Amino acid sequence: MKLTGQAFIGATRVAGQGNALQAMDPADNATLDPVYSSAQSQDVDRACELARQAFGPYRKTDPETRARFLETIADNILELGEGLIQRAMAETGLPRARLEGERGRTVNQLKLFAEVLRADRWLDIQRDPALPERTPPRPDLRSRNIPLGPVAVFGASNFPLAFSVAGGDTASALAAGCPVIVKAHPAHPGTSELVGHALQQAVKQCGLDEGVFSLLFDAGHDVGAALVAHPAIKAVGFTGSRKGGTALMAIAAARPEPIPVYAEMSSINPLFLLSDALEVDPETLAEQYVDSLQMGAGQFCTNPGLLVARTGPALDRFIARATEKLQGSQGQTMLTPGIAQAYNAGLTSLAAQPGVELIARAPDAQAPNQCQSTLLGTRAEHFLKQPELQSEVFGSAALLVQCDSDAQMLAIARGLEGQLTAGLHLTDQVDTTLARELIEVLETRAGRLLINGFPTGVEVCSAMVHGGPYPATSDGRTTSVGTRAIDRFLRPVCYQNFPETLLPVELQGL
Amino acid sequence: MKLTGQAFIGATRVAGQGNALQAMDPADNATLDPVYSSAQSQDVDRACELARQAFGPYRKTDPETRARFLETIADNILELGEGLIQRAMAETGLPRARLEGERGRTVNQLKLFAEVLRADRWLDIQRDPALPERTPPRPDLRSRNIPLGPVAVFGASNFPLAFSVAGGDTASALAAGCPVIVKAHPAHPGTSELVGHALQQAVKQCGLDEGVFSLLFDAGHDVGAALVAHPAIKAVGFTGSRKGGTALMAIAAARPEPIPVYAEMSSINPLFLLSDALEVDPETLAEQYVDSLQMGAGQFCTNPGLLVARTGPALDRFIARATEKLQGSQGQTMLTPGIAQAYNAGLTSLAAQPGVELIARAPDAQAPNQCQSTLLGTRAEHFLKQPELQSEVFGSAALLVQCDSDAQMLAIARGLEGQLTAGLHLTDQVDTTLARELIEVLETRAGRLLINGFPTGVEVCSAMVHGGPYPATSDGRTTSVGTRAIDRFLRPVCYQNFPETLLPVELQGL
Repeated sequence: MKLTGQAFIGATRVAGQGNALQAMDPADNATLDPVYSSAQSQDVDRACELARQAFGPYRKTDPETRARFLETIADNILELGEGLIQRAMAETGLPRARLEGERGRTVNQLKLFAEVLRADRWLDIQRDPALPERTPPRPDLRSRNIPLGPVAVFGASNFPLAFSVAGGDTASALAAGCPVIVKAHPAHPGTSELVGHALQQAVKQCGLDEGVFSLLFDAGHDVGAALVAHPAIKAVGFTGSRKGGTALMAIAAARPEPIPVYAEMSSINPLFLLSDALEVDPETLAEQYVDSLQMGAGQFCTNPGLLVARTGPALDRFIARATEKLQGSQGQTMLTPGIAQAYNAGLTSLAAQPGVELIARAPDAQAPNQCQSTLLGTRAEHFLKQPELQSEVFGSAALLVQCDSDAQMLAIARGLEGQLTAGLHLTDQVDTTLARELIEVLETRAGRLLINGFPTGVEVCSAMVHGGPYPATSDGRTTSVGTRAIDRFLRPVCYQNFPETLLPVELQGL
Repeated sequence: MKLTGQAFIGATRVAGQGNALQAMDPADNATLDPVYSSAQSQDVDRACELARQAFGPYRKTDPETRARFLETIADNILELGEGLIQRAMAETGLPRARLEGERGRTVNQLKLFAEVLRADRWLDIQRDPALPERTPPRPDLRSRNIPLGPVAVFGASNFPLAFSVAGGDTASALAAGCPVIVKAHPAHPGTSELVGHALQQAVKQCGLDEGVFSLLFDAGHDVGAALVAHPAIKAVGFTGSRKGGTALMAIAAARPEPIPVYAEMSSINPLFLLSDALEVDPETLAEQYVDSLQMGAGQFCTNPGLLVARTGPALDRFIARATEKLQGSQGQTMLTPGIAQAYNAGLTSLAAQPGVELIARAPDAQAPNQCQSTLLGTRAEHFLKQPELQSEVFGSAALLVQCDSDAQMLAIARGLEGQLTAGLHLTDQVDTTLARELIEVLETRAGRLLINGFPTGVEVCSAMVHGGPYPATSDGRTTSVGTRAIDRFLRPVCYQNFPETLLPVELQGL
């Protein structure tokens, strides 16, 4: 498919009139055609007005219709074939295998939400039958969930497929019955256009109202801010930086009608290496850890950026092998020049904090925008004193905190900000007291706890929680991955004393 | 039980050091002993610190323990006997029957949440078993809900029992496993102290950590603001004015760690009288309507403050009978002098809007702080032009909007702000097109739709939704009445690859 550089506003293609943006191959800084242009306020208004109009008919479509729509989007994405993978590779620097895997995840999560729609759980149907003889009489009461309204979704730089145009937020919002307006991430406009085309075609193929989907481009932040402020928009899905997420939260809270913002923002995903586990085979643990740290150049919200362990010979062996592996590793191209610069700046800032020292660093970069994986170290007493040491450095960077006691490990857990994940390495035999104490604390700090594993790799399933207390997300009561993500875009409505014929169909005949 | 005027901070009783406050009997403006004193910032800190300490052990209590705790609170409230009813009557001006009914509801909702705890739904347990043969292998994933942390609850003036110290917010938060700090409503400190005693005793009888419950008094707003801003507090429950609710929302959003605020604020609960239903028996409908309007001097969040109907002889007959009934009605004492003043001021302001005229008003008050029920009227074209006509006047006041067409009735529905309830009166035979169109619109504006009934009287059950889009509440995704209210204070946590012995007990053996 040939790229046009145009946005999607309902069924039409629109050339933007604002500032130009153009993708860049981060591997060689070459710009990639075509030129995209930023949407203007009238484009935002038009997309929002179409979404508002589409909401009425779209929310009334039956679940099977929406399920087939999601499956059609999935089919259309697969039909983009090699062109999508090639373009995404060029725009993001991510390798083929990763992008093929991500495409699979994207397609599967669309299909998963189709299955969610075919079951009834998402409707949360409740009924209390009338009790006419009671004093006072109880009327018949039934309830079900309905969608909130049009949703603004922000494409994420680090998941050009799975959390961008047809990613998790879009899939769950469309499943809920909410029209979606996506603000494409400027780092991968071509990938966004291709997927946008797949989505726009699916709207047409399924005979849905055109306003169910729009896709806008922007070189800056105006379009996103205007979307979140627009009265037609009733919820926001975002994956990105804490700065970006909190800015959207502030806009949403200041609206005449405040709306929920589901922002997945920052997390350093602490891993606690308990002594018994460390002692079993520190070298293998170090190798597995560095693999997780370097996966995708560390550009994951679940990147394990904080290690906590007790000093001793086992930790020394862990450090030695991790150092060896890092020093022997290859540079990896980061998503954008801006992200590569931010990685280096963040690392410099973290390394300059009192008590922080360099443990190991990958060899100097041989190409533009490469991430040199880095392991820094500090001691517990520094970490406990300096909240700045909890700052996320987006990329393959980690801080190892050396502790002298279990009490210090626990104190570190207690001082943590909200996290997406927290992990423990332990054996079945010993240390369960510390493990239990850590779990009890970490449960209140994170959305997902994992044992003897690494946080990278987020399963899309019913038990998944990809969320966690602020600042990991703006709303720790929810998850952006897994079936429960649909709940974010629903609210309950109660129907009292309704005659059967006026009840919503799913509440009839209960 | 003799009142002391002291606050409850954990297991201790504390005399406040701040500004004095004293209850007043609104029937005669007589002050009621004892004198209460506002809590100071050190009291807030102490209650929050105790709540923080209590959270760990309290959230680990098994559901049966918490169920018995709720039942013990209910028993203790009943044991307060006549003293509670007498004091509440004196402080609120509400009649005995109403307060005895409200006590029943309060006790029943505590018992309902005990039953909620004995079922598993509130935990939302999910499991995805390990798939070791898959590429990549899937780990075992299980999830359950855990409580958010200590909750600040604000007593409501209009429900001295059911939405105050041991009311719906407290019951649902305690059920969830959250310690509660209540800020008593200054209009009924004695009732609050009595119920606070019942609660504090229950904490002791059940052997729970003292910080599970505290109760603070305040003549002003400082204690409430300090509670919402305190880092130990993780959620807020509030029922009251839009001004109060939005102030708390702003404080919560500005915290370093923003927290959810569940504020139930304002609603005019529109009732649409469809012509066929109006024509059947306009006199009886008018009588039933005025009964609902005057219930509890209209001091309900579900008071039916907006009537919408088509002009014609049937509406004229409705108006004539409503006028007759209003003019023959008795004054009713309002909750406080401030609420009575606000009622009169709100009514004066609404009546002064262009196009608004007086239809009927109850006879002049014969005693202090009485509500003179009032029906105002306007025409659809005025209502559609002036958003001010949607202002809530707390008390027995309503605005009747006369329409010339079904289209105007629909336009009024479309222009409504978020509401707790919206109702239709109709017959089974005709007008279903208009009814369907109205229902479709009102579904997006309200939390509960009702047919051929009146919104006053909120059933506490599983299908109830006492919520609705902003500004009816701060968060239309939730309900403050009914079993689902517990969900407000929970969040999911996922456990990945946990050995059986380290799993939370409810996730073992799945």
